[in-house]
Amino acid sequence: MTDSRLDPVLARIDETLPEATDRLMELLRIPSISTDPDYKAECRRAADWLVEDLKGIGFDAATRPTPGHPMVMGKAGAGDRHLLFYGHYDVQPVDPLSLWDRDPFDPQIDETAKGRVIRGRGASDDKGQLMTFVEACRAWKAVHGSLPARITLFFEGEEESGSPSLVPFMKEHAAELQADVALICDTGLFGDSTPAIVTMLRGLLGEEITITGPSKDLHSGMYGGIAMNPIRVLSRIIAALHDENGRVTVPGFYDGVPELPADVAAQWQALDFDAGGFLGEVGLGNPAGEQDRSPLEMIWSRPTCEVNGITGGYTGAGFKTVLPSKASAKISFRLVGQQDPARIRESFRALVRSMLPPDCTVDFADHSASPASQMEISGPMFEAARGALSDEWPKPAAYVGCGGSIPIAGYFKTLLGMDAMLIGFGKDDDQIHSPNEKYDLESFHKGIRSWARVLDALSR
Amino acid sequence: MTDSRLDPVLARIDETLPEATDRLMELLRIPSISTDPDYKAECRRAADWLVEDLKGIGFDAATRPTPGHPMVMGKAGAGDRHLLFYGHYDVQPVDPLSLWDRDPFDPQIDETAKGRVIRGRGASDDKGQLMTFVEACRAWKAVHGSLPARITLFFEGEEESGSPSLVPFMKEHAAELQADVALICDTGLFGDSTPAIVTMLRGLLGEEITITGPSKDLHSGMYGGIAMNPIRVLSRIIAALHDENGRVTVPGFYDGVPELPADVAAQWQALDFDAGGFLGEVGLGNPAGEQDRSPLEMIWSRPTCEVNGITGGYTGAGFKTVLPSKASAKISFRLVGQQDPARIRESFRALVRSMLPPDCTVDFADHSASPASQMEISGPMFEAARGALSDEWPKPAAYVGCGGSIPIAGYFKTLLGMDAMLIGFGKDDDQIHSPNEKYDLESFHKGIRSWARVLDALSR
Repeated sequence: MTDSRLDPVLARIDETLPEATDRLMELLRIPSISTDPDYKAECRRAADWLVEDLKGIGFDAATRPTPGHPMVMGKAGAGDRHLLFYGHYDVQPVDPLSLWDRDPFDPQIDETAKGRVIRGRGASDDKGQLMTFVEACRAWKAVHGSLPARITLFFEGEEESGSPSLVPFMKEHAAELQADVALICDTGLFGDSTPAIVTMLRGLLGEEITITGPSKDLHSGMYGGIAMNPIRVLSRIIAALHDENGRVTVPGFYDGVPELPADVAAQWQALDFDAGGFLGEVGLGNPAGEQDRSPLEMIWSRPTCEVNGITGGYTGAGFKTVLPSKASAKISFRLVGQQDPARIRESFRALVRSMLPPDCTVDFADHSASPASQMEISGPMFEAARGALSDEWPKPAAYVGCGGSIPIAGYFKTLLGMDAMLIGFGKDDDQIHSPNEKYDLESFHKGIRSWARVLDALSR
Repeated sequence: MTDSRLDPVLARIDETLPEATDRLMELLRIPSISTDPDYKAECRRAADWLVEDLKGIGFDAATRPTPGHPMVMGKAGAGDRHLLFYGHYDVQPVDPLSLWDRDPFDPQIDETAKGRVIRGRGASDDKGQLMTFVEACRAWKAVHGSLPARITLFFEGEEESGSPSLVPFMKEHAAELQADVALICDTGLFGDSTPAIVTMLRGLLGEEITITGPSKDLHSGMYGGIAMNPIRVLSRIIAALHDENGRVTVPGFYDGVPELPADVAAQWQALDFDAGGFLGEVGLGNPAGEQDRSPLEMIWSRPTCEVNGITGGYTGAGFKTVLPSKASAKISFRLVGQQDPARIRESFRALVRSMLPPDCTVDFADHSASPASQMEISGPMFEAARGALSDEWPKPAAYVGCGGSIPIAGYFKTLLGMDAMLIGFGKDDDQIHSPNEKYDLESFHKGIRSWARVLDALSR
């Protein structure tokens, strides 16, 4: 089936891939490490580079100041349909440098057993992904002289350093950021060839508990046996947080946890997830979550409780017979559906208090408390995008979950009332945040083509 | 009742207390910190000072080399009864110096609400205690011209730094150290006025366990819910080590744990131990051990299991959603009676292994494994010494337990087959190992008198 609007754009993308790759290499040469103050000027340079590049395509583009690194905004196109695209131009630090096979900021194309890859810091996260959308716009403009919809580009320079300026900026510029949908290119394919749209993001509730027993560290010879040991108390509490089937025992924890819709369940079934391989890569073999749930549910759609850290007493080399005054743990809950972080926090704290022996006290420290995000996929846009992606890749696109949190998606929802469509072309072996980061040339090429198809589909 | 042999010695002790105190002050001025190589010459100087002092009393005294700090040996007296006396001339470090009210090595007599005290590092532990025995010998010699028994003094200079030379030295010099009983002055009174002979010392078994789940640290967003968390496993294991009545659950743990003999139980009852005060000082109020045991049993005669340290995952400031690869704990058992450390180690390890889920492995590291020491108090010497102490102090002397371990006592038993009689005059508020260490002048004075009485009683 030929398409006179889309086909020439795809052809143009294929023909100009070498030039597009060169542009990405140029951007990758700028060491825009946002977390390191020494690289402040480089972050600025990356932002300026993007502004110039966008102007060349015809965007009304400019940097926007923040207390930290600048935002880049670009506007082009017209029409009723308004699409916002988000990406980030900053990158992770590169240490330990000794583990890189080459200079992280002197990128090159490597031939590998699995195909050609672009190697360098930011190749995948997120400069390469960001540029897939920019290149799709460029090709469309070159072929048709204008974009098929009103498009606003929104690039951040602080994503790898906690995004301190993001929320204030979004609030201040809510009007110009408001669009029909937010497109985000910072996620991956499912496996190597199944395009994925992330429609569920787990929320995160972080709690730190510190149990105090004796008022000071004691000698376990003198007090052992008679004084309550706070490590023993903390261990009992942690041990009680899951039942033997892996279910979280905090009262009311599962309130608001939805069952997976039948059509999504069927899609996931079709994905044929290799749980053995996923776990095998990290030395495990047995799904440890709720035993009556599938592995994909465990990581995408079911809530969890994890202990992220524990400490108490003497933890150095050798042995010290201390009976410690305090023991503490950092505990996080991944939330789904309508689970209410505030209610779960209260219920968790009540459970902890109920398990305290008379001689112990507990202090709680708040960490994050964000609810899950669930995109509204029943409207026409999500299905249109899914169809477009399915046309490009060997396998049909799937709505997937994401165990982690991608705060920007939540902000689009909570601050601007927009759904976010998370579409990305990264692969599990891209080594983002690690030495020798890469982005498959195929991801880059088919990523650009995918966005051309999505632009087409969302603007009809 | 007057006693023509003992009374003049006691009178001499009373008359010469100022000179005895001056001598102690002189010894306290030598900063013999054994653990710090910078103070090696000072340790030597303390040993030499003792040798000269002992020679002045008529002891055949000399330092004996070791790979570390020298031993001091002194021999005097004659007769069938051979008493060995052990003490140590080295002291703890003094940091943090800022918490001392004065130079730790410029001792002085302080007036306090509870009486006059000798303030300085080592005043109680162990120079002051050691000198109580030396001064008793000096007074006896001055009055009677000779000692009432054959006496061997054995002073160590490495007690505060792990006693690396002690066992080899004891093995090499077993013949000359062999005596009827070993006297050790490194313990305390019970309360402020009840003399105590420690006749039970708990043993110590130290185990370190490290649970490994995933082969590397994981992101809890990506793997949370499906990957087994080793902190959860470790907490379950620790929580299972005690039942709800505070009893240790390791199979066979209580094999060889004796019931308290009726006479000792009666003595302990008479001590009228203030458990509320003991716990209250450290902010606690409820004895946490086996709920069917008395507080004194919990700290002296019952075995325990304590977690001395635990660590896993992220323990710094803030939050990190890591799902750690490893979690570890240091666990120690205080042992009593005939409990066998080797068998308990095996049983503990088997219990841990039985609680491992299929995806986890465990590594064990050995720490100390020493059985309990139980002195044979039924012979005449212990009762004689108890009577002598009871004559000196307002309350009758008691046989007590000691929750901690005093390795030297075990070595006398295992290496030389001698019982040790642990008699000391320290008080709970002496602040040994801490800033502003002190020894009550009363402890020093009545301590010297006590040893004169014990020498008398043991040599009749």
